[in-house]
Amino acid sequence: MKSFMVKRYEGLDAYTPGEQPRDMEYVKLNTNESPFPPSPKVLEAITGEEVEKLKLYSDPEGKDLRDAIAAHYGYKRENVLLGNGSDEILAFAFFAFCAGEKCIFPEISYGFYPVYAELVGTDAEKAPLCDDFSIDINDYMNVGKTVIIANPNAPTGMALSRADVEKIVASNKDNVVLIDEAYVDFGGESAVELVHKYDNLIVCQTFSKSRSLAGARLGFAIAHEGLIADMNRIKYSYNPYNINRLTLLAGKASIEDDGYFRKNVQTIIENREYTVRELEKRGFCVLPSSANFVFARKDGKNGEELYLELKKRGVLVRHFKKERIKDFLRITIGTREQMDTLISKLDEII
Amino acid sequence: MKSFMVKRYEGLDAYTPGEQPRDMEYVKLNTNESPFPPSPKVLEAITGEEVEKLKLYSDPEGKDLRDAIAAHYGYKRENVLLGNGSDEILAFAFFAFCAGEKCIFPEISYGFYPVYAELVGTDAEKAPLCDDFSIDINDYMNVGKTVIIANPNAPTGMALSRADVEKIVASNKDNVVLIDEAYVDFGGESAVELVHKYDNLIVCQTFSKSRSLAGARLGFAIAHEGLIADMNRIKYSYNPYNINRLTLLAGKASIEDDGYFRKNVQTIIENREYTVRELEKRGFCVLPSSANFVFARKDGKNGEELYLELKKRGVLVRHFKKERIKDFLRITIGTREQMDTLISKLDEII
Repeated sequence: MKSFMVKRYEGLDAYTPGEQPRDMEYVKLNTNESPFPPSPKVLEAITGEEVEKLKLYSDPEGKDLRDAIAAHYGYKRENVLLGNGSDEILAFAFFAFCAGEKCIFPEISYGFYPVYAELVGTDAEKAPLCDDFSIDINDYMNVGKTVIIANPNAPTGMALSRADVEKIVASNKDNVVLIDEAYVDFGGESAVELVHKYDNLIVCQTFSKSRSLAGARLGFAIAHEGLIADMNRIKYSYNPYNINRLTLLAGKASIEDDGYFRKNVQTIIENREYTVRELEKRGFCVLPSSANFVFARKDGKNGEELYLELKKRGVLVRHFKKERIKDFLRITIGTREQMDTLISKLDEII
Repeated sequence: MKSFMVKRYEGLDAYTPGEQPRDMEYVKLNTNESPFPPSPKVLEAITGEEVEKLKLYSDPEGKDLRDAIAAHYGYKRENVLLGNGSDEILAFAFFAFCAGEKCIFPEISYGFYPVYAELVGTDAEKAPLCDDFSIDINDYMNVGKTVIIANPNAPTGMALSRADVEKIVASNKDNVVLIDEAYVDFGGESAVELVHKYDNLIVCQTFSKSRSLAGARLGFAIAHEGLIADMNRIKYSYNPYNINRLTLLAGKASIEDDGYFRKNVQTIIENREYTVRELEKRGFCVLPSSANFVFARKDGKNGEELYLELKKRGVLVRHFKKERIKDFLRITIGTREQMDTLISKLDEII
């Protein structure tokens, strides 16, 4: 079959999202979603009247939601950018700060970074993790290129301290440092407050995990207004109406219901600690996680086989084929009941 | 202030969406939205239970909605691609088929085409319209580059026949021809059926206009499965979960309520013919429109002044500063009542 694809993208190796099989009901621990529904305030916000207003375009500036996010984190509207998921924030940043130039990110990290690097045409250096799977901050000091770091990192779940992040940001004053904090609410130290101090720092977060809105598609960045303006130029050159009306409302309702958010995050952290203990009792090595997932392996057990055995038993976890992590499973932290199912299925298998 | 923007995009001239002023209640005839709410089936589909499921990612393959669209137009799921608005479909196509290569589109057309051309780095030829603002199909015959044509064209509203579109597609067998049918439901002849015959044709449509879902952000392309696969590789390299859960449901409910859709389209067409008559009575020259807007000017009247006078009186229309069309107003067709308000305000001004 003839291909019309441009030469530039003939070899483009796209991202593979977590599977969503429909052959049976799974305990779904493979895409780091929240087991809890969004805040009841979100349900209240999505009224029939608002559904009728879908006839009108959404506010491309997303003023109300940006104001709510800005107020929550102590910034101004001009410091906030909205994306169709934090993936789109990453895309905007790769276009604005990496296209045709250079960047660096960890070799083992969010699988989308190398894809964006290829899409925008950036010369991407992949810095190896240390033997214990931590990030060596020395690899990112004064590198003269855009730095992208997930903190906590995925799929390891391991976090850098805010002090370490600040060292990286301070040492790269002429380049953008993007800290992807998709999982920060579950125990990491956010770098958001450093945006007051550094004009080269972008902190990117998402409503998909801690705010139970994965299906609404909403992420945001907080940065100096100059960086936000640069990314906005990309947004207005790609899809100005990138967030739908109902998602703008859902996001605002969610950010304003801080109690609900905190309670859920606390429960996930407790379930994570429980899961870690249960896995360790069974001889698993579990990396220290600050996220809503754990990354675990068991000596002598093949990761892919474990993943397949769990799937057969109705439990979906995520497995990566990359050599260094091929015996690990990335397991999303769900409800206590879901984690007990996981543990009992593991007991059956092992 | 220091800029971190990459050299490549320093001069990027982003798209300007229609204004959404909040200083007063306007009769909003500036962004070609529908005056009617989405189908009642859409309201039924967005239940509290579905809002709770926002905790889960949407189906990145959008299987149910693609099946519904495919069934409606007589194709298979593999022939359908979903976008976050048809803008995103255009973006995917520009990446897949234009990046680093060549394309051609009309000089006066949808203002986003030159922006995408700049974003992806394509050498874009802009073919002038004829004196009567029609597209000269000879400009697009056998051109050896990707062809992008809005049909009906915007902001003129003027349509090419399906036979003329077919001539263009047939003469460019080695290149992609993208027909942007955002407004086709209001009187144009769709090229969708030609996809059965040509593997180089992409037809792109939207739920934003005739289906009253501008704020839901949903567009789609119908094309040979090879072209869909190419664009999908871009989608999976940009934002696999590009459509939110509620929008997937809204789109399916809308496409399945054909009666509601047809009734609204018919009303808009009637209101358009009424508006054209009333404008012509007042000495306006109105281009022959097959869209849900008209493009009109009056001898001796300055377009920008007319636009500003209407705005002052609470009626928003769209004005473009481009030299050749600077005395035109693009007026969205709304309800009969809205059009009567427009006419009476014009009577006050003239």
